[in-house]
Amino acid sequence: MSEPSTYSVLVEVRLRPGIADPQGATIERALPALGFEGVRSVRSGKAFRLEVDAPSADDAARRAGELAHRLLANPVIEESTVTVLA
Amino acid sequence: MSEPSTYSVLVEVRLRPGIADPQGATIERALPALGFEGVRSVRSGKAFRLEVDAPSADDAARRAGELAHRLLANPVIEESTVTVLA
Repeated sequence: MSEPSTYSVLVEVRLRPGIADPQGATIERALPALGFEGVRSVRSGKAFRLEVDAPSADDAARRAGELAHRLLANPVIEESTVTVLA
Repeated sequence: MSEPSTYSVLVEVRLRPGIADPQGATIERALPALGFEGVRSVRSGKAFRLEVDAPSADDAARRAGELAHRLLANPVIEESTVTVLA
C-alpha cells in the first residue's frame, strides 16, 4: 500500500490528564465573554510537522513516534500522538 | 450521522510557509547527531484540544474553526487546521 517516499507527519504533544494547564484554563474562562458558548474544556499543547523519508507510512510513523517520545515530549508530564498525513 | 453531543476537537496552529521557525530549525539541525536520519524538515506550532458541545460534528468543527481563526491563531503569520476526533 505504501512505498518509499517522504511522509508528512503530525506529532501532537499534550500535557497528561491532571497536569495543570494555566494557558488552556485561561482561554477556557475567557471564551464565554468573547461570544463562544459550549466549549467545555481547552487544553494547550505543541504541534510539530515533520517531513520524514521512510520506506513506508508505518515506518515513518514508527520513527516519528520514537523521536517524539525521546526528544519532543517530556514523558513525565506529557504524552504524544503521531499521525501520518500523506 | 452525528447527533447533539460533546465533540473532542484538535486545533493545530502552525506558522505559514516562509515564516521563520527557529525552534523547528534547531530541532531539525540537531536530529542527525542524535541518531535520527531522514527527517527533512521540522516545523513547530501549537495544538489545542477543545471539548465542544454542538448539535453535530460539522457544527463543532465550524465553531472550533471560528474560534481558532479569531483567538488561537494570528492570521498574519499563522494558519490553523481543525479536526473533529470523536
